[in-house]
Amino acid sequence: MASPSRFFTQKVDPSLLATNQAVAFRDYGRPADVLRLVNRPIQNFGDDKILVRILAAPINPADINQIEGVYPAKPPFEPEIGAVAGNEGVAEIVAIGRNIQGQGNHQVGNLVLPLYRSFGTWQSYAAVGPNDIYSFAPRKKVPILGVASMAINPSTAYRMLNDFVSLMPGDYVIQSGATSAVGQAVIQLCKIWGYKTINIIRDRPDLDTTINHLKSLGADVILTAEQMGTADTRQYLKALGSPIKLGLDCTAGKVASEIARALGPGAPLVIYGGMSRKPLLFPVSLFIFKDIQVRGFWMNRWYQHCPHLERQTMWEDLMHYMEKGELQPPKFNTIPWVTSTPTSSSASSSSTSSLSGTDGEGLLKAIRTAINGPDGGAPGTPKKNILIMDSDYIN
Amino acid sequence: MASPSRFFTQKVDPSLLATNQAVAFRDYGRPADVLRLVNRPIQNFGDDKILVRILAAPINPADINQIEGVYPAKPPFEPEIGAVAGNEGVAEIVAIGRNIQGQGNHQVGNLVLPLYRSFGTWQSYAAVGPNDIYSFAPRKKVPILGVASMAINPSTAYRMLNDFVSLMPGDYVIQSGATSAVGQAVIQLCKIWGYKTINIIRDRPDLDTTINHLKSLGADVILTAEQMGTADTRQYLKALGSPIKLGLDCTAGKVASEIARALGPGAPLVIYGGMSRKPLLFPVSLFIFKDIQVRGFWMNRWYQHCPHLERQTMWEDLMHYMEKGELQPPKFNTIPWVTSTPTSSSASSSSTSSLSGTDGEGLLKAIRTAINGPDGGAPGTPKKNILIMDSDYIN
Repeated sequence: MASPSRFFTQKVDPSLLATNQAVAFRDYGRPADVLRLVNRPIQNFGDDKILVRILAAPINPADINQIEGVYPAKPPFEPEIGAVAGNEGVAEIVAIGRNIQGQGNHQVGNLVLPLYRSFGTWQSYAAVGPNDIYSFAPRKKVPILGVASMAINPSTAYRMLNDFVSLMPGDYVIQSGATSAVGQAVIQLCKIWGYKTINIIRDRPDLDTTINHLKSLGADVILTAEQMGTADTRQYLKALGSPIKLGLDCTAGKVASEIARALGPGAPLVIYGGMSRKPLLFPVSLFIFKDIQVRGFWMNRWYQHCPHLERQTMWEDLMHYMEKGELQPPKFNTIPWVTSTPTSSSASSSSTSSLSGTDGEGLLKAIRTAINGPDGGAPGTPKKNILIMDSDYIN
Repeated sequence: MASPSRFFTQKVDPSLLATNQAVAFRDYGRPADVLRLVNRPIQNFGDDKILVRILAAPINPADINQIEGVYPAKPPFEPEIGAVAGNEGVAEIVAIGRNIQGQGNHQVGNLVLPLYRSFGTWQSYAAVGPNDIYSFAPRKKVPILGVASMAINPSTAYRMLNDFVSLMPGDYVIQSGATSAVGQAVIQLCKIWGYKTINIIRDRPDLDTTINHLKSLGADVILTAEQMGTADTRQYLKALGSPIKLGLDCTAGKVASEIARALGPGAPLVIYGGMSRKPLLFPVSLFIFKDIQVRGFWMNRWYQHCPHLERQTMWEDLMHYMEKGELQPPKFNTIPWVTSTPTSSSASSSSTSSLSGTDGEGLLKAIRTAINGPDGGAPGTPKKNILIMDSDYIN
């Protein structure tokens, strides 16, 4: 792993603060139209701030929806440059302001995760307050891409498996979207905690490969969406010998109805996505006579109200599982953060014009391709994209 | 109120035990086809039983569904006569077996409510165990039809208002089916407890009369189903100044979707019926971003698992409210329990042939009309029917 930090110092080069580069948008719209690479000088780093260097930042569906303006969590807009994109990522502390040294767990060289959404992780540096970040010493065996993508997807899986029903070893959990990053985390966490998973995936050309991959993660049962609702499948699920205690759905439409039907009495069905863009449809009898409960989960809401200790426990657990190799990050398509290096003259404070250098255009093009391409990060596709600001740091 | 009981005695006339009459069915099917009036001698009244005389028994949708065989709670079937219909009603203790005298609160002359479904309330007498009934002294001002119909509809309203969210005075509750027996109880209980109600009703010829009646019960806001979903109504509901804390629905279909949309963040929508016979349809975003919860309520399930003290508190509260005139029973269409009086010879133990006397046919015909008629007890119609075994007892 990991080159040592290049910034084990409290002295920050002023040119560094002036040349921070960010992917930002001034108006909501199609990412290909509105995203721009801009100079965003770090003007407010001082005695009360911590300077962090972003190491890696995923491109999540929520980021895209936020750029499109259809996500309920709105980013802060700055004069002229607009909003810096990106909600998730891992950074490294490179300097700590004089007035807050010794506060909390913050140390130069520590890794940090943002403690609020709309952090703006698609940039090189950020100056933040001591309460804006969760800080921890880097661990050799914890993959940096796993940490960079820990706060949304594996955390969603962790909470959904813990917060809606009390599961016991041997209990069944049924989920759709099992190939997604959340779905893969659900499989692995269930394996760790002794729960059994029934995993619903779309039929696909590489079905056998997909099945083998999910089984290697610990999946117990795998069914295709097309198999759901058939008499054979209903019979099979009934004959498991143990009622299904929890349902997780990110697809909506017919599959969600079939999951609800398969659940045991009183079980919750937790909705955390709607990839089919269809509504949810349930027969009344499932609620009245079978006491099914339909709930929703949004990681963002949980973080807004969570007790700090619960968040810490969750993240430490997840890193512990990654350290032991029991929880693997999803396969990422990595996009190197290659920007043109502005000359000192172009790094003036009139920095809101978009960079048109070849490297900047290359980065934007890679992001556009990641978002729009067939294997991009759009909803419905399992392949995830991640921006890599420091490739030396990837282990 | 109330003639004094004709049976303040421990000595039970043997001919009485032999001539009990019941409305029963041997096969599931259309009530008009399968219901029969039968002699059902009380053969097991003895030292360990309590003999009760039924005073009044509602005809509920659940009774009809049970006769049709589509209700999940199945009645016990006896050889030859089949199952006695009727799940709800009030009875009077007329005799107590020697071995259980002094047990519990049971006294001759007390009123009793069944403690289990499929009690078979559509008959004259029943011999029951001491744990099969809830026993209490009659109270002058509590209407007997209110007590007879207390265990299902007002109890459903009571539980739904108490068990899903903690309401405070001034909080808003929104419900569909506001003219139903449950709906009217919801309005009155909310009035008693200081909650405000938004009531959705079908458009109808006598709309003004209906609105005036619901307002007289304490309804705060009344909207027609047709008004739900319009921009005006959505705007009106948003502008209430206080989020709606609880939704109750017995209609499913479009109205349920609109109720879900009107709810405040985190509010539960409780489903207790599906009169439109349509499924429930919800957009995914209501669950994820607004944290709406869809739950079900079935009175039957609650009684199966309820703590005795909670049931007692609920029923005593409801009788207290009725005594004070704050909770009125719904308007009933009363059906007198007029049967032919078998001669002693026809009251033999070979008693499973249906009575064909004029009076027996008259009762069956009245029940059939009540079930099938335009103002009958079928789902979707507010008028309720109730069998009256002792008209002297009605106050």
